[in-house]
Amino acid sequence: MAIREEVIGKIIAVFKRHGAEAIDTPVFELRDTLMGKYGEDTKLIYDLKDQGGEICSLRYDLTVPFARYLAMNKTKQMKRYHIAKVYRRDTPAMSKGRYREFYQCDFDVAGEYESMMPDAECMRIACEILSSLDIGEFVIKVNNRKILDGLFETCGVPEADFRPICSAVDKLDKMSWADVKKEMVEEKGLPEENADLIEPFVKMKGRGQENFALIKALRETSLKDNARAMEGLKDMETFCEYLELYGVLDHIQLDMSLARGLDYYTGVIYEAVVVEGQVGSIAGGGRYDGLVGMFDPKGKQVPCVGISIGVERIFAVLAEKAKNNPNKQRTTETQVLVVSGQKDFLKPRMKLLAELWDAGVKSETIYKANPKMLNQFQKCEVESIPYAAIIGGDELEAGIVTLRDMATREEFKIARADIGAEVLKRLQ
Amino acid sequence: MAIREEVIGKIIAVFKRHGAEAIDTPVFELRDTLMGKYGEDTKLIYDLKDQGGEICSLRYDLTVPFARYLAMNKTKQMKRYHIAKVYRRDTPAMSKGRYREFYQCDFDVAGEYESMMPDAECMRIACEILSSLDIGEFVIKVNNRKILDGLFETCGVPEADFRPICSAVDKLDKMSWADVKKEMVEEKGLPEENADLIEPFVKMKGRGQENFALIKALRETSLKDNARAMEGLKDMETFCEYLELYGVLDHIQLDMSLARGLDYYTGVIYEAVVVEGQVGSIAGGGRYDGLVGMFDPKGKQVPCVGISIGVERIFAVLAEKAKNNPNKQRTTETQVLVVSGQKDFLKPRMKLLAELWDAGVKSETIYKANPKMLNQFQKCEVESIPYAAIIGGDELEAGIVTLRDMATREEFKIARADIGAEVLKRLQ
Repeated sequence: MAIREEVIGKIIAVFKRHGAEAIDTPVFELRDTLMGKYGEDTKLIYDLKDQGGEICSLRYDLTVPFARYLAMNKTKQMKRYHIAKVYRRDTPAMSKGRYREFYQCDFDVAGEYESMMPDAECMRIACEILSSLDIGEFVIKVNNRKILDGLFETCGVPEADFRPICSAVDKLDKMSWADVKKEMVEEKGLPEENADLIEPFVKMKGRGQENFALIKALRETSLKDNARAMEGLKDMETFCEYLELYGVLDHIQLDMSLARGLDYYTGVIYEAVVVEGQVGSIAGGGRYDGLVGMFDPKGKQVPCVGISIGVERIFAVLAEKAKNNPNKQRTTETQVLVVSGQKDFLKPRMKLLAELWDAGVKSETIYKANPKMLNQFQKCEVESIPYAAIIGGDELEAGIVTLRDMATREEFKIARADIGAEVLKRLQ
Repeated sequence: MAIREEVIGKIIAVFKRHGAEAIDTPVFELRDTLMGKYGEDTKLIYDLKDQGGEICSLRYDLTVPFARYLAMNKTKQMKRYHIAKVYRRDTPAMSKGRYREFYQCDFDVAGEYESMMPDAECMRIACEILSSLDIGEFVIKVNNRKILDGLFETCGVPEADFRPICSAVDKLDKMSWADVKKEMVEEKGLPEENADLIEPFVKMKGRGQENFALIKALRETSLKDNARAMEGLKDMETFCEYLELYGVLDHIQLDMSLARGLDYYTGVIYEAVVVEGQVGSIAGGGRYDGLVGMFDPKGKQVPCVGISIGVERIFAVLAEKAKNNPNKQRTTETQVLVVSGQKDFLKPRMKLLAELWDAGVKSETIYKANPKMLNQFQKCEVESIPYAAIIGGDELEAGIVTLRDMATREEFKIARADIGAEVLKRLQ
């Protein structure tokens, strides 16, 4: 939990630095709200039992609930973050941080804005977060659904098959082209010659400044006659210019094989990957301009773009690192243990404890009437509690407390009225 | 959300002051885990649909999952807090902060310890939390299941009916004695003369120092021959002594009508109530020494005591107060808006923005290519953003930024390299 708190704290700090406000939506959504949004992953949705009333499911992500929230409240502009658990009936893989219940940390910008500005900010946010965590080198693969759709169009894929073919392309990070092609042809009924046309494109990628050359090269392929693809390429050029201004272009890899599985993306898509280790994708997202309109009775659209940080995978990486760290992470923040060697001194200990709490000092005493002195000091050592406040008959009479610095073993006589302030001063 | 964050932040600070560590348990529990723990409220449990695999329900509280966690991990001692949502198929009442999905903030101490020490600390924690929130006067009603069970025994209630009769007594805060008696006699089959014996007891209460007199008086009633009741009275005497040491006895009201609905309590029980307004119960809990054993294959017990803060009700009270407060609560923490009156100055604005982010300043710019100066200043005012960082051709050339204090309307020329540090210094 200490690692989690630290990671989530850092993420919230970045979200706030970018002016986001927090919102919270319920863990339940109407089942109908979630249908038709997640493509093949719809089967992973958890349903609630019908106990009367509405038919509900547990949220699969935080994006669809956000879009539903915007439509219901007729909100046209919002920059929000939301950190909460989502639920998927998936096969868990603990070592990779894949669970059925897991945190997502989402930042989204809703509103009609200057093209690519919020999209570029999402990349900047991802880079700020991933750089602030000790997880090593990362790269953010980016692509654009407009380019992909234009590419499919150019390669003769029927419009109705764009999403299934897209979902096949998305598997290229785990499967060979041969297997992906097989899926396209055998499962999804695409003629082999059309699949072959796609192949050279999905092998194209650039990084940093190379992205500009790649965009230029793509503009000279068969895509040049496709309006959708050319619009997507223009968008990506602007996007990369902004990322250069934001100082993060070096992390960005334009990768034509990146497709993302979910149905709702309409523009830029991205996925951050840790270069070393087994963790893989650690953040993802994209633009979804059509989702809010699906929940509005008049189909009124609110364009949106967002990024979702998969913190469980980050926890998995950091927990692995912490194992090899000799400095044990504390699970509590206790500053003082109230200690006594005197028999039947429970009540004086409790009274001093209350005074420390009154002074705002994080303090405990052992919940026993007559604990051994050794056990009390041991608790300090095992739990890295920095100070012991020792009280006995002599201290009580003199109106003092003996404060022991557990690291140096030095002891100080402190006037009882000053003990709280003294501890806080020493800990500063 | 700003109110929530503030309240939850204060509560966590108190939990940490008392040396608690954070844990997290899943939102699902096996349905069997939750059965037989909540008495009449079992009907309020949400079940998941059977989609294959285990039969699960959503947690009804954080206490049963904690007990299950202790048993599964064979943990014998733990002081933990857990802040998370719980789920109840109840009739919502928004104005009272009663929802189907709501936060609970729980603190619990598990372990074999000096009698009443952790129990008294739970009261101290409740008082620290409730005093730190601006919710007015509160009182914590306390009682003890040992006294209640002894009382029922003395009044001739069969042992098998203790829990149902207890649950009837628990309704005395909402129903008259006549109605409660009716429930005991007609619904729960208790002979009328036995119900009449209970009446004088459940009308007894004390507050602060009076609690000691009440304990003394109870020791002189028919309870004097009941070992269970006498043990409970001894416990409550110690409890009140400790609460006096902890400086919170004045908030404590020993109230023989307090029974609590849940089955699992075995000792001290308590419920905090706000004196004025419609909110009612705002925290509750008690000792549950038998719960962990229900999940241990060998029935091995771990005594526990805990307190649960019902924050939704606190949010409801504070939201009501905030409505009447002329100072609008900010929903973001943005410190600077990057502003320009110059045409086609989007990229210079974005570059300055990135420099502010690099310096750790919470900053935004309007997501438009050519926003009007007036609209930019208006955003600052509406959202209480304290500074505008103005950049135009002159500033760019001179390597400066014009920093405008939105409250005083003063403007300062700041060297561009110093702008981040300058803003942070001024905001300190």
